[in-house]
Amino acid sequence: MTDHTPTVTTGPLPASRRVWHRGAVHPDIRVPMREIDLHPTAGEPPVTVYDSSGPYTDPEAEIAIDKGLPRLRAGWIAARGDTEAYDGRHVTPADNGFADGARLTPEFPVRHRPLRATGGRAATQMAYARAGIVTPEMEFVAIRENLGRQAAKEAPARDGEAFGAEIPDLITPEFVRDEVARGRAIIPANINHPEAEPMAIGRNFLVKINANIGNSAVTSSMAEEVEKMVWATRWGADTVMDLSTGRNIHNIRDWILRNSPVPIGTVPLYQALEKVGGIAEDLSWEVFRDTLVEQAEQGVDYFTIHAGVRLHMIPLTVGRVTGIVSRGGSIMAKWCLHHHRESFLYEHFDEICDIARAYDVSFSLGDGLRPGSIADANDAAQFAELETLGELTQIAWAKDCQVMIEGPGHVPMHKIKANMDKQLEVCGEAPFYTLGPLTTDIAPGYDHITSGIGAAMIGWFGTAMLCYVTPKEHLGLPDRNDVKTGVITYKIAAHAADLAKGHPAARARDDALSRARFEFRWEDQFNLALDPDTARSMHDETLPKEAHKVAHFCSMCGPKFCSMRISHDIRAEAQKEGMAKMAEKFREGGTLYVPMEDAR
Amino acid sequence: MTDHTPTVTTGPLPASRRVWHRGAVHPDIRVPMREIDLHPTAGEPPVTVYDSSGPYTDPEAEIAIDKGLPRLRAGWIAARGDTEAYDGRHVTPADNGFADGARLTPEFPVRHRPLRATGGRAATQMAYARAGIVTPEMEFVAIRENLGRQAAKEAPARDGEAFGAEIPDLITPEFVRDEVARGRAIIPANINHPEAEPMAIGRNFLVKINANIGNSAVTSSMAEEVEKMVWATRWGADTVMDLSTGRNIHNIRDWILRNSPVPIGTVPLYQALEKVGGIAEDLSWEVFRDTLVEQAEQGVDYFTIHAGVRLHMIPLTVGRVTGIVSRGGSIMAKWCLHHHRESFLYEHFDEICDIARAYDVSFSLGDGLRPGSIADANDAAQFAELETLGELTQIAWAKDCQVMIEGPGHVPMHKIKANMDKQLEVCGEAPFYTLGPLTTDIAPGYDHITSGIGAAMIGWFGTAMLCYVTPKEHLGLPDRNDVKTGVITYKIAAHAADLAKGHPAARARDDALSRARFEFRWEDQFNLALDPDTARSMHDETLPKEAHKVAHFCSMCGPKFCSMRISHDIRAEAQKEGMAKMAEKFREGGTLYVPMEDAR
Repeated sequence: MTDHTPTVTTGPLPASRRVWHRGAVHPDIRVPMREIDLHPTAGEPPVTVYDSSGPYTDPEAEIAIDKGLPRLRAGWIAARGDTEAYDGRHVTPADNGFADGARLTPEFPVRHRPLRATGGRAATQMAYARAGIVTPEMEFVAIRENLGRQAAKEAPARDGEAFGAEIPDLITPEFVRDEVARGRAIIPANINHPEAEPMAIGRNFLVKINANIGNSAVTSSMAEEVEKMVWATRWGADTVMDLSTGRNIHNIRDWILRNSPVPIGTVPLYQALEKVGGIAEDLSWEVFRDTLVEQAEQGVDYFTIHAGVRLHMIPLTVGRVTGIVSRGGSIMAKWCLHHHRESFLYEHFDEICDIARAYDVSFSLGDGLRPGSIADANDAAQFAELETLGELTQIAWAKDCQVMIEGPGHVPMHKIKANMDKQLEVCGEAPFYTLGPLTTDIAPGYDHITSGIGAAMIGWFGTAMLCYVTPKEHLGLPDRNDVKTGVITYKIAAHAADLAKGHPAARARDDALSRARFEFRWEDQFNLALDPDTARSMHDETLPKEAHKVAHFCSMCGPKFCSMRISHDIRAEAQKEGMAKMAEKFREGGTLYVPMEDAR
Repeated sequence: MTDHTPTVTTGPLPASRRVWHRGAVHPDIRVPMREIDLHPTAGEPPVTVYDSSGPYTDPEAEIAIDKGLPRLRAGWIAARGDTEAYDGRHVTPADNGFADGARLTPEFPVRHRPLRATGGRAATQMAYARAGIVTPEMEFVAIRENLGRQAAKEAPARDGEAFGAEIPDLITPEFVRDEVARGRAIIPANINHPEAEPMAIGRNFLVKINANIGNSAVTSSMAEEVEKMVWATRWGADTVMDLSTGRNIHNIRDWILRNSPVPIGTVPLYQALEKVGGIAEDLSWEVFRDTLVEQAEQGVDYFTIHAGVRLHMIPLTVGRVTGIVSRGGSIMAKWCLHHHRESFLYEHFDEICDIARAYDVSFSLGDGLRPGSIADANDAAQFAELETLGELTQIAWAKDCQVMIEGPGHVPMHKIKANMDKQLEVCGEAPFYTLGPLTTDIAPGYDHITSGIGAAMIGWFGTAMLCYVTPKEHLGLPDRNDVKTGVITYKIAAHAADLAKGHPAARARDDALSRARFEFRWEDQFNLALDPDTARSMHDETLPKEAHKVAHFCSMCGPKFCSMRISHDIRAEAQKEGMAKMAEKFREGGTLYVPMEDAR
């Protein structure tokens, strides 16, 4: 196996430790967080931040990619007593695109028998929530969302505009249960992916981000994809979508799932299309159904299903500047046109729900008709599909299936809020999961930025998860560096949204970093940054010496022009003169400042 | 001179030509634009875009850095007959920080006698505008803003939310005159910088961006700074601020001005502080006044003046997390505290206006108390200063001086619009010129992105010019690559703002690029991009062959999964079946699609 076993990036981030918080309802759960230590001169406790990186950043953890991660949730799932192990579907050569010999990615070395719900039950977090059960997953999520904060006697100061979101001062397990029961949040957690650490996607939780990985027919390999997954979670990806479309899809996915600490999403249609040789018209419910079971047994946590693309909507796309830009959407549209009938996804959505509920695969109802250009934003095709996604949401909820709704795309700033408002209105507050949106079409090579603007805004308005866009969007398959740039950009967007919504825990990290900045604690500034390595290396480009890490200036302004340094002088002088008191006296202009001694 | 003469980047951008549009009021003016040629298969005329790059992108132009650019406006200025040439201030060793020998940057080889207005006149665009005169500068700006569009019989379709901005269908010279007369726009155009191509900064014009360059005491040289200026304008900087603080400030600025096709801004306080050995308390009105004259004679187009920092406001900053983060603001605060009096900038603002009006130096009234962290956003100190800037605006306007107002800073998304609204309210609609704002503090190394989000939003709300932030912000002095990244990021923000405001010319480039994307015209996609080089190189990383430039797919999805390719099939099929007509028939769900043949 040695030659095939990929190596991945491990080790803690600078000055960081992985720590655990114990459950109360479920005392056996251990919820990971990251603590960032500050310099002793700060006189501050470590800063606790959300940690999506899994065991890879824990120096104590033994990482063996060919064994997979510990099966964290296996006991919780078994304890519910509503599932059974079975032999599972037989893997066929078609599942890997008939790759063979040296071109075949080896099977993952360990095989676990898949689980499914017994007796037609729904083994879903939504079913448990509706039954009033607080699962370990729900308590895990509650603890995780609080970032180590404890209940305080006084409510934390709130500062934000939440547009109807109702983030509580502290997240309780019961709150999580209620949100999941109402369909306002999901916990994507396939019972066959017990390695994943539970997380929630919902408007009343921290805004999450997704990173897409996946090979294509043109490029990339299993080792690269596993490392991209680990790399993406290291920098903060909350979920990862494997959008592979080439050969070896099945086996690559297994390697990814067995090693992923975050939920994995897929678009099963891509693999189904491979199975029929890439001919959209040859797709059938049978092939698709088979693919759903295959992936559900492997442990995929959420499926993008493009069941909202209906026959009568297709003509609405004909006058568009960029037609249909969703891969899944275009495949289904072609199928519908060719067969002159509604898609098998739409017609069999009920049966799709039956599969999903047996494994707790969440739905990400795909926006197959999302706009691919500023010109096509918010058009009739897009909104017609969104209404259908709202109808499908009700069907899924009736089956206790967890649902989120995918959104655009390319949307100029003034049309972004209408997307959020309409989604809330027609989809019963199911979580919104948007791709960007890109706010202009004219910057290929920088679409992480064109879309980061839109993502921050729509996250503020209420989108629960932001699907990242990398610099390579529209141009090529992202490599490792692109993945990191995309993730960091989207962590910025998500965090900016949390701040603007007034999330009570969000500003702690900003304030800690700003204090470090003001006090010239350079190391703390680097360590508190979303990307400590880049912050440090940029600083060191001009001031590389260790002595500069305690310097009370940087190369931007040099020592004489450092406003922060001068501010300290001002503060010292002000304190000497009791100026803090005077701040209250001399507000808003008018009275000239009179020095204390003269005032006497 | 050879060893000192810097080389700069020249040559056209891909598929681009510099073209000129003639004036009508002033038939001798030639307004440059860039035309981007499309592939013949597009069947479309070239796309015309704004061109800030000056002669450097014109292969016909002879570029000689030691001679300087042609003095475009010299004749226009002379024709007005209200200025005189005079000997000018004597350059002293202190002007260059007493650099000598090999450490002294040589003087610019050509010396022009400076001009100033005669008889206490105001030689400002505002004075002319108020007198009803449409100057060549105003017509130049009008033509430039229209991006080659001609008056159409029908009003162009408008789509946007302008928040009170009133961008006309087509900009006329008279409209420019009126906006300048009302103080709602400025044309920064010092009579001693005739090399610059006139441009306007105002809420009813295209959103502009500024790039900061400048050496510091720690690093950088003249050759680097001149190249950074040329490089910044190549990628779209509309103005450049020279924020140098080290030695050789005077001579470096001369090299920059004589070669700059865009207005140059400075913070005269920085040089004044150098002249007093970096001791803030030793600053005086005399030293500052001398510096203003020095820089006005050289041709600086706008001065940042931190006259809004008043003594009674300083105590309001004492409780801040990051104190005062404006260099100018902190210097003046320190001076005020030390001397226990209002600053010489505030007390002598009237005299400062007298200097500015003699040369047409515009004011950028500095926000010395802008917030340096999310925690300090929109606080009492910040808004108290903004109100003072409004008072100073009235003083400047009474002297026919052009004014814009600087804005923050670090501001979370939900507090951005309040900045714009308050600025409009208290500053009489003088153009707002903001630094970002940064929407979170936690991403040093990526502050072009944290701030690009805020810049796009505040640009949409009405900010007239966005001051860029580079990835090096808070960490070090930007190099050439950082300058480019900052400029492209801010071109994205400005353009996203233009789109959202509904600027009638903005979407043409997006639509042209989107059509190119849909039609697999890869070369056109690259050429229409803000950064063609990066777009092309990212594409070529995975598909380098020339044949791939006509491929109907890219490496993201490969040929089978290309939604755009499938969309073409759908469109072909739809057209065959007359589906465009059916689009009208089958709207919004309900009726199932019935194929044409069955319907008969």
